[in-house]
Amino acid sequence: MEIIPVEGVPEVRPGDRLADLLVAGSVAFQDGDVVVVTQKVVSKAEGRMVAVDHDDPRARAAGVEGESVRVLRRRGDLVITETSAGFVCANAGVDLSNVPEGFATLLPVDADRSARRIRDGLRARTGVEVAVVVSDTFGRPWRRGLTDVAIGCAGIAAVVDLRGTTDTQGRELHVTEVAVVDELAGAAELVMGKASGICAAVVRGVDPTWLREGGSVRAEIVRPPAEDLFR
Amino acid sequence: MEIIPVEGVPEVRPGDRLADLLVAGSVAFQDGDVVVVTQKVVSKAEGRMVAVDHDDPRARAAGVEGESVRVLRRRGDLVITETSAGFVCANAGVDLSNVPEGFATLLPVDADRSARRIRDGLRARTGVEVAVVVSDTFGRPWRRGLTDVAIGCAGIAAVVDLRGTTDTQGRELHVTEVAVVDELAGAAELVMGKASGICAAVVRGVDPTWLREGGSVRAEIVRPPAEDLFR
Repeated sequence: MEIIPVEGVPEVRPGDRLADLLVAGSVAFQDGDVVVVTQKVVSKAEGRMVAVDHDDPRARAAGVEGESVRVLRRRGDLVITETSAGFVCANAGVDLSNVPEGFATLLPVDADRSARRIRDGLRARTGVEVAVVVSDTFGRPWRRGLTDVAIGCAGIAAVVDLRGTTDTQGRELHVTEVAVVDELAGAAELVMGKASGICAAVVRGVDPTWLREGGSVRAEIVRPPAEDLFR
Repeated sequence: MEIIPVEGVPEVRPGDRLADLLVAGSVAFQDGDVVVVTQKVVSKAEGRMVAVDHDDPRARAAGVEGESVRVLRRRGDLVITETSAGFVCANAGVDLSNVPEGFATLLPVDADRSARRIRDGLRARTGVEVAVVVSDTFGRPWRRGLTDVAIGCAGIAAVVDLRGTTDTQGRELHVTEVAVVDELAGAAELVMGKASGICAAVVRGVDPTWLREGGSVRAEIVRPPAEDLFR
């Protein structure tokens, strides 16, 4: 498996078709590639930006509340909320970095749909059939440090269910549902860096049985509150 | 960046030196490689196995309690605990899969030390300087599906701190501490699969500035209870 940063993508502006910009980058996409695209450029292209006074914490807090259906925890400036799409993350995903001064990005309204649109656009532009993962950077409650995870996907199962296969001892495996899109998002982050302006990476060589229509982070990964032990 | 499964590693038995077994595998290690090794074989080599009656849930529960310092949540057979090493995970990491019938593996006592021992062993055997990550498969409170994360590391920073660098707009980034060892563990899992008997993978081509003495999952990633909003 290879992970290849997509360099040379032009600056993204509201209304841009991301597929058009991605094909201008350094990687010639191939059938079966997984193209991981960061939330930041997806939100910019979709116009999911709001004007904020970076020095006014109350204005930012109002933006976070507008994106949230529930506040889980607060400590100082940090607010952990559940977004309208069901993600539990800091500040509802409202992000001030890598956006023009005076603006913040909001999460895409439906990042699975964003991923489908990029996938369809890449097929239309290049004729190749790729999977797309939209990634964002989230914290974890019991582990320091951030990792990139998937907030949307298309053309790939979000979770690969290995239940019912047997382990190397011939015993049935009971619970091995692997969130492969999250692992793909994290793997892509390793070649993107945070300050280098690279907004996409390709993972080449994934198990082709994972690729399929109808994958969805929202349907497969977002845990319904009723299942949740920690909300 | 490339991710390469290490095939052909002999079956691991208690008392084995893992470095000796890994060099018998399909990959010739190179300076700067990150070698990700699954907890299962580290625990086997270190003799961290206990006899359990797989059909007796009470016996398993007793094993889990012995490994835990705190129970966070219970639901049916599932117990989320904090282990003595500080990991919050299901069943204290006690695992029945891919071990001989009648046994379960426990987490290594100190997986950072386990990683150092493998790293030192590979240097002694091959003369190459690699980083080592010991990985395990954990759930997440708000996301379905499991991902592999790091429980120990050596020769690499667990968290790469990008605070103070500037983003593409020239603005200072405030919080971008990336848990690269967790992303490396997840990336490695993508080529290992659960049922294929592959216990290690190499990530080749990581940023060389991440490689250093003294990295530690326990010191850098395990979140102290006092910082925790969800315990």
